[in-house]
Amino acid sequence: MALGKDYRGQDCALARALEIVGERWTLLILRDAFYGVRRFSDFLAHLGLPRAVLSSRLQALVEAGVLAKHGCEYELTERGRELWPALHMLARWGERHFSADGPSRVFEHVACGTRLDPSGSCPSCGGIVPPEEVRMLPVPGRPVGDDPVSRALAEPRRLLDPLRP
Amino acid sequence: MALGKDYRGQDCALARALEIVGERWTLLILRDAFYGVRRFSDFLAHLGLPRAVLSSRLQALVEAGVLAKHGCEYELTERGRELWPALHMLARWGERHFSADGPSRVFEHVACGTRLDPSGSCPSCGGIVPPEEVRMLPVPGRPVGDDPVSRALAEPRRLLDPLRP
Repeated sequence: MALGKDYRGQDCALARALEIVGERWTLLILRDAFYGVRRFSDFLAHLGLPRAVLSSRLQALVEAGVLAKHGCEYELTERGRELWPALHMLARWGERHFSADGPSRVFEHVACGTRLDPSGSCPSCGGIVPPEEVRMLPVPGRPVGDDPVSRALAEPRRLLDPLRP
Repeated sequence: MALGKDYRGQDCALARALEIVGERWTLLILRDAFYGVRRFSDFLAHLGLPRAVLSSRLQALVEAGVLAKHGCEYELTERGRELWPALHMLARWGERHFSADGPSRVFEHVACGTRLDPSGSCPSCGGIVPPEEVRMLPVPGRPVGDDPVSRALAEPRRLLDPLRP
């Protein structure tokens, strides 16, 4: 991991985590993976980042055991799925403080239909909800990007369900 | 925020959050702020990053309302303190998967002395524990850096208590 060199003095679990997920674009790639994106071309179309950057980030995530490559598809491993609550929490924090238009998507517990709280817990059932039990619903009236992934994400979806537009 | 330019296509709360906390070093600066570090010279000594980088990161965090500057000290705002569970979760994730020696610090709920679970909740009392109710305890036998902040952090401390070595 390239970033490791810069954090070398930091004997800290957070520094180790940031070597993996702290690279520019990496958390947005993982967000897309939670949304069900699996193919290189779909990440590319949805994120609009340079091809070489995407390629290098995906490779690093595979090497770190966060994604697994099956044929042409990248899938979150168990280790990768554990990042869901932190990612959800950071997104809700960004929304509360830096998004003038409010949320563009909401997240609910599939089992009971209750909207998750900012920590990623279900207020009805208690406890952090794992991503495979989360449904994402777009907020009506928000602009939708014109790539195939954005159009697919304009419908309610269960997290981790493979998205192949 | 400089990073914003790269995430411009991403109308996503997570992209907004990453514009603030996704810059290299920023989450480690915030970790130190939770540990009680407040002075420029103490961040500098503990993190070992270039002075200009620290200066630019602190300024961006003040502009984003994550830190407040009081005289010569930087203090986490309410908005900044909300990042604690995500930061704690990322650190525990790094520890589980990438730290051969196990944790160097453990975190407990001050009220009951119970060790926090990986989500930052108290298994006895339930619910995410806010940082002002968390005590950090170093794990004995782990190497301690030779700067004054590292030596101060080798003793049990309550989070957010000002650390002025």
